[in-house]
Amino acid sequence: MKRILLIVCDGLGDRPVDSFGGKTPLQAANKHNFDWLAENGICGLMDPIAPGVRPGSDTAHLAIFGYDPHECYTGRGPFEAIGAGVKLEPGDVAFRCNFATVDADMKIIDRRAGRIASGTEEITSTLDGTEIGGAEIVLKPGTAHRAALVLRGKGLSWKVSDADPHETGKKVLDVLPYEEDAKRTAEIVNEFVRLSHEKLADHPINATREKEDKLPANIILPRGGGIWVPLRSFEEKYGLKAAAISGVTLVRGICTSVGMEMLDVEGATGGLDTDMMAKADAAMKALESKDFVYMNIKAPDICGHDGLAEEKVKVIQRLDEMLGGVKRQLDDETILAVTADHSTPTEVGDHSGDPVPLMIFGPGIRTDQVAQFDEISVARGGLGHPRGSDLMNMLLNLAGRAERFGA
Amino acid sequence: MKRILLIVCDGLGDRPVDSFGGKTPLQAANKHNFDWLAENGICGLMDPIAPGVRPGSDTAHLAIFGYDPHECYTGRGPFEAIGAGVKLEPGDVAFRCNFATVDADMKIIDRRAGRIASGTEEITSTLDGTEIGGAEIVLKPGTAHRAALVLRGKGLSWKVSDADPHETGKKVLDVLPYEEDAKRTAEIVNEFVRLSHEKLADHPINATREKEDKLPANIILPRGGGIWVPLRSFEEKYGLKAAAISGVTLVRGICTSVGMEMLDVEGATGGLDTDMMAKADAAMKALESKDFVYMNIKAPDICGHDGLAEEKVKVIQRLDEMLGGVKRQLDDETILAVTADHSTPTEVGDHSGDPVPLMIFGPGIRTDQVAQFDEISVARGGLGHPRGSDLMNMLLNLAGRAERFGA
Repeated sequence: MKRILLIVCDGLGDRPVDSFGGKTPLQAANKHNFDWLAENGICGLMDPIAPGVRPGSDTAHLAIFGYDPHECYTGRGPFEAIGAGVKLEPGDVAFRCNFATVDADMKIIDRRAGRIASGTEEITSTLDGTEIGGAEIVLKPGTAHRAALVLRGKGLSWKVSDADPHETGKKVLDVLPYEEDAKRTAEIVNEFVRLSHEKLADHPINATREKEDKLPANIILPRGGGIWVPLRSFEEKYGLKAAAISGVTLVRGICTSVGMEMLDVEGATGGLDTDMMAKADAAMKALESKDFVYMNIKAPDICGHDGLAEEKVKVIQRLDEMLGGVKRQLDDETILAVTADHSTPTEVGDHSGDPVPLMIFGPGIRTDQVAQFDEISVARGGLGHPRGSDLMNMLLNLAGRAERFGA
Repeated sequence: MKRILLIVCDGLGDRPVDSFGGKTPLQAANKHNFDWLAENGICGLMDPIAPGVRPGSDTAHLAIFGYDPHECYTGRGPFEAIGAGVKLEPGDVAFRCNFATVDADMKIIDRRAGRIASGTEEITSTLDGTEIGGAEIVLKPGTAHRAALVLRGKGLSWKVSDADPHETGKKVLDVLPYEEDAKRTAEIVNEFVRLSHEKLADHPINATREKEDKLPANIILPRGGGIWVPLRSFEEKYGLKAAAISGVTLVRGICTSVGMEMLDVEGATGGLDTDMMAKADAAMKALESKDFVYMNIKAPDICGHDGLAEEKVKVIQRLDEMLGGVKRQLDDETILAVTADHSTPTEVGDHSGDPVPLMIFGPGIRTDQVAQFDEISVARGGLGHPRGSDLMNMLLNLAGRAERFGA
């Protein structure tokens, strides 16, 4: 039985870029390690969910890990909350929140409260542990301007709209129920928003911020509500002791939800400045005691969202160096897979439904005729056009860990 | 957001033809516009329903439009009826009918009553609006020898057999119930057939026909019964204002069912003599005010059914000219897709379960390495081997109209 290393380059897939003469960033990059692995491995073009479907990072990761997002995903809230360190219980309804700044008319001045980076623990403790409309309020700070709100109690529903209008200058939205049974939950969330504004207005942290000419965090805006549906762990589902490395709260939440041990790596930021090699070294180290190690690098997705094609090429070249380091450390007992959770084309500036390149390398692989790792070349690879939900089965098979179905 | 033009060349897919040295009609044809689009677009080989499944034009179109035919299709009757202009209500059971000629023993002399082309309105009005066994009878003429029968009322079932024996010389069939609950419906249809024979025997239209040495339309034979299940419209489902061009009643019925506006084009006949360029011009014109325009050209399917391989090559060459005209009118705001609803191999003479070539062209496309549009070349294309049910998602994605699933 072999070990598995899965590296997801977040948002790596792209489309032709005009300034590159119609090449994608992957085609334009100098990336001999990616290409060496493609040439000596087996490739394919993977639809994370289904052809044309535009995935979120959360639904794509669930699918890639073998959990059907149509069944277990109702919103990002619970995964954000878990990623932020909250322990959820079945039936909990969770929201992602932003600390924001509003004016006297409840109009948004800044959806991120001047990108507040400290003091959020003091702010959340004002409301954490209180009760609204019979529901217990769990409120924990996330990174920077983010927080997680959990409603705990009987008869709660996730089918409510967002309070966050997602746009500066707009008024904070009334949370509306999408169905009759969600009326009470909507009222609780509205009361939470009102109360956050009331309690934060004169909070000492905001008094200090105003003295420093910073925008006050005078309201908390929930969005992306979802109900927590417990997932079978990787160990239970696949017999894999698993660990994960990711600087992204949402991805960390998903990895934690499926029972992966989160590894913290010094220099891993989830940003463009992340220390990729430190992450790769930590992943290789973790393989000594784990069966499966998952590693996410957010940088290519950031370039995609910001429309920075040349920066994306540079990120790919840094990824390539990192892969060179991984390659040097690989042994005959490891299956390596490299792919993306979705495409984030720089000319779109957002996730798209285009498939992503997938490469698997290791002993026993049926090496195909693909010698370049890019969106066009891998389309003719030996893995064909699988879906994200096929990936774990393919990896378990190549690792000699798949259960036989039938006699 | 871009607009979408979907051109379906009905029954275009084929198999190797002996007299073409094993080439398919697409491979044998001179078609530089098809090939230019393939070379500059992205291709794939699409299974309209699933690999090997032989689709009808109706089930294939439902799948391609994103409606699961296993859920919403029970028979062609309702779509034929809607295509013929009948407004159905939920629960209506509808049949396709032929005017036919039978002898005194109820044996079929001609299943099409000498291809009767006029006077059918007078014939149907004899029975339209009457009542049989508690069900209201709606009977409307279609094109030529075709008509639509709708049974309206409570407790009707579509699970009954055909009255039409589908063969000359055979006796008209007793309509049988496929299940207990369908007994009453079977009796109603049998009574309808008996009554049609009784009322038409001495109908003035038939008296005239006999004087003109034409076969009388002395019976109406229902088949293809189905229950009407309302479908979500294209606008509701995809946010697309849609129009369609087709000369085929069944296809028109499906387009109307999903809320497309049917456009009538002078010279569009649904036959071999159809004015393809007039249809294409009308489609391009419609794109000025619509988000999605669908266009069906029946001609290749007709050649397939009739086993005319050389004629099919000629039709493909006319399609190619038409595509040249479309190409000249395309702008950067349009995604063009060209495909078929199913294969109709000339050596089979009927629909087959072989996949069909698919090509998508437009801005942002990941151009692949395919340079010919035929059943063999596109198999290595960047779209892989999608299913018909994936097509709308792929088009919405490329048009920048796909909703994101997840965060």
